[in-house]
Amino acid sequence: MSNTPSNPKGTRDFLPSELSKRNFIIDILKKNFKNFGFSEIETPALEKTSTLLGKYGNEGDRLVFKILNSGEKVKKADIIALKSNDLKSFTKSVSEKGLRYDLTVPLARYVAQHQNSLTFPFKRFQIQSVWRADRPQHGRFQEFTQCDADVVGNNSIVQEIELIKLYDKIFSELGFDDLVFKINHRLILKGIADYLGLKTNLNEFISIIDKLDKIGLDSVVNKIKEKFKDVSFSKLENLLKNKTLNFENISLLLNDSLLAKKGIEDLKSVFDFISSKSINNEIRFDLTLARGLNYYTGTIIEVVSKSNTSLGSLGGGGRYDDLTSLFNMKNTSGVGISFGLDRIFILMEEKKLFPYYLKNSFDIIIINFGIKYLKEIYSFIDLLRNENNKVLIFPDKVKLNKQFSYANKHNAEYAIIFGENEFNNKEIIIKNMIKGTQSVHDLKDLNTNILK
Amino acid sequence: MSNTPSNPKGTRDFLPSELSKRNFIIDILKKNFKNFGFSEIETPALEKTSTLLGKYGNEGDRLVFKILNSGEKVKKADIIALKSNDLKSFTKSVSEKGLRYDLTVPLARYVAQHQNSLTFPFKRFQIQSVWRADRPQHGRFQEFTQCDADVVGNNSIVQEIELIKLYDKIFSELGFDDLVFKINHRLILKGIADYLGLKTNLNEFISIIDKLDKIGLDSVVNKIKEKFKDVSFSKLENLLKNKTLNFENISLLLNDSLLAKKGIEDLKSVFDFISSKSINNEIRFDLTLARGLNYYTGTIIEVVSKSNTSLGSLGGGGRYDDLTSLFNMKNTSGVGISFGLDRIFILMEEKKLFPYYLKNSFDIIIINFGIKYLKEIYSFIDLLRNENNKVLIFPDKVKLNKQFSYANKHNAEYAIIFGENEFNNKEIIIKNMIKGTQSVHDLKDLNTNILK
Repeated sequence: MSNTPSNPKGTRDFLPSELSKRNFIIDILKKNFKNFGFSEIETPALEKTSTLLGKYGNEGDRLVFKILNSGEKVKKADIIALKSNDLKSFTKSVSEKGLRYDLTVPLARYVAQHQNSLTFPFKRFQIQSVWRADRPQHGRFQEFTQCDADVVGNNSIVQEIELIKLYDKIFSELGFDDLVFKINHRLILKGIADYLGLKTNLNEFISIIDKLDKIGLDSVVNKIKEKFKDVSFSKLENLLKNKTLNFENISLLLNDSLLAKKGIEDLKSVFDFISSKSINNEIRFDLTLARGLNYYTGTIIEVVSKSNTSLGSLGGGGRYDDLTSLFNMKNTSGVGISFGLDRIFILMEEKKLFPYYLKNSFDIIIINFGIKYLKEIYSFIDLLRNENNKVLIFPDKVKLNKQFSYANKHNAEYAIIFGENEFNNKEIIIKNMIKGTQSVHDLKDLNTNILK
Repeated sequence: MSNTPSNPKGTRDFLPSELSKRNFIIDILKKNFKNFGFSEIETPALEKTSTLLGKYGNEGDRLVFKILNSGEKVKKADIIALKSNDLKSFTKSVSEKGLRYDLTVPLARYVAQHQNSLTFPFKRFQIQSVWRADRPQHGRFQEFTQCDADVVGNNSIVQEIELIKLYDKIFSELGFDDLVFKINHRLILKGIADYLGLKTNLNEFISIIDKLDKIGLDSVVNKIKEKFKDVSFSKLENLLKNKTLNFENISLLLNDSLLAKKGIEDLKSVFDFISSKSINNEIRFDLTLARGLNYYTGTIIEVVSKSNTSLGSLGGGGRYDDLTSLFNMKNTSGVGISFGLDRIFILMEEKKLFPYYLKNSFDIIIINFGIKYLKEIYSFIDLLRNENNKVLIFPDKVKLNKQFSYANKHNAEYAIIFGENEFNNKEIIIKNMIKGTQSVHDLKDLNTNILK
């Protein structure tokens, strides 16, 4: 028996006050996902290692939590592999299952597995835990919640438009109006590379462009000149001279690029439909937005805060043409967005966006003068609960100040007092714990309006 | 890449139609837990093995899913233990964490760990997954959801009364009125054993009594005579002659038992407060109710269906005096109940208790005649969503029958039609997909009442 028990490093216990705030966010997400026509699904925490491994790169494979085989199966441990330091083979010999690493690969597996039960386009959302064997550190957890909405099996730009509207709707309802929805397109990045005569290492080129915000134009030009000998420098300078790399300039520049054509058309459709005037936050083309390029194939989106730029993105997403082909289901385009629950939580705390009422764990306390008195007013307690008041009956007939102190610690709004005096006078006392006032009511005449 | 991907045996993917029903149940649980003054908490799926092991017996220890240590740590594998078939030591050498097996031990760990941040009595509910490495079979899963409500740090019988009221409230709201809430008390069982002169093997005695329903009175008497030589047979016959082992008879019989006194008082308080008349279902004393005796120390409760007795219990609970002492926190009495989500689901399907509206994944489809027309009515779509209508925009401008067929597959109630004709006539058509009727409305005059 451990002396001072604790949860494992990198995991969290949620106290009621914290969880009610997290659920405030999650409830708003769920409601709006549904109102936009998304259906909820759930997949198991446990997946076969054959489903999980090989999808996230070597580093990802290492970070997947593996489940030790149970019982006699563990005897098949490959001791030779262990001794020769081949940990991968050893792990394979003692583990067949792991914990899901994200919600995207399970979605691909789910769609491929259940394709005959689903109707496409399949709009699904999923809010579940994922696990990563990262070194635990401040703000990075081994167990955390992902919140994803994706549309599978449709390549219409209407999806991108709706997803940005959904971002705006949800973040507005949470209280944000100073966010930027950055948007770019994979084919525009390809077009730029092509325009510059860049044949290889597109990802490296993008990762330099990605630093524009941090290191400035001159450094970016120098770095590109240094790394890429085959780039046309006159064009590069021409490109970067357009100090504002806005959508109009880029469109003109890539006017003749067949590669970029679809990307430009897509974003034009988005900007025709959504302007920063038509939403509460801001939408902005950002040529330097890169986001996991080997994964996305079309539009890419990222949400950042103007007031807290060090926090990182509050959400992101994009279109991927090839997801379910991991599981032998071809030609299934998908597009999705995710919400960074922990960062949204931090920013809402910072901006004091959580409503005050989340602080109380119940609304009304029933002061206990003995079980006989509780029974007398139990039908009224029933009534209060039926109208969604959170009512706690103090369990013991103890001193009043102890009962009131409990109520205050929980920020209860009302106390209901019904003891011997009240019983004899056929009345009930309602005390407003916030205002410190109280009112007396006829026992025959109890209804929930007397709380008003 | 696997050819036909699948989730692991013993786990489940939830399709939208199934999940919406599960969540219908869970939402009713959560609402009522809150209305009864319980606060929600969450604990991590991962717990230290030192927290998990040694709490569930040897069989339980075996069924805890163990997480393989990551990276270099796995090199510490105890090969000698493995070779000498000491699987327990081997497991210990490669695993420090496991998946939670239930919500009770994590609750005890949580309360002991956070005791200074909590206010007692601490009323918490928790609805999360648990994992057991059981052999997967029909209706038994390795990953399933537990729904628990417990009060920690209080021994008033008011808790038991409230928990039974809570059972009745929740099951009534789910549509059940033919359930039996069986109730018994550990101290009454002790009193009976004492009355019979039984010195040892109380659990075995109880397990025979537990079979009364199945094997009948005579067999029970014979089995007891066979097993227990030290039992007073005259008293046993006297006891069992009271063919109805009801609460009044048992109380009279154990009138002088100091051991049983508190048990009888407790149940008397419960029956004084709650009769089958005052609830929608039935409350019934059941001397043969046993429920994991080594765990509970006071009241025990179980919920069964009268119409489907083969299904097993739909929920159960009781009082335990000694839970947190596992983690060195003494004198903390607890009492709790749980809800068997999967069985409740099965019985609700059987009785067709799920509301029809759960079948549709959206309420309204917007027929797509091109992005230009969508933009024109987007503010109306916004309005519909703001009033919590689930609205899906069909993403592609394809043949109408294809769009309507998609809507029908999802049981959509309304289709909104706005194409070139409607644009020219400044009107919009609302089609009721259930009734097959349609109505035309002025574009200037759109509000959500036109759906009525």
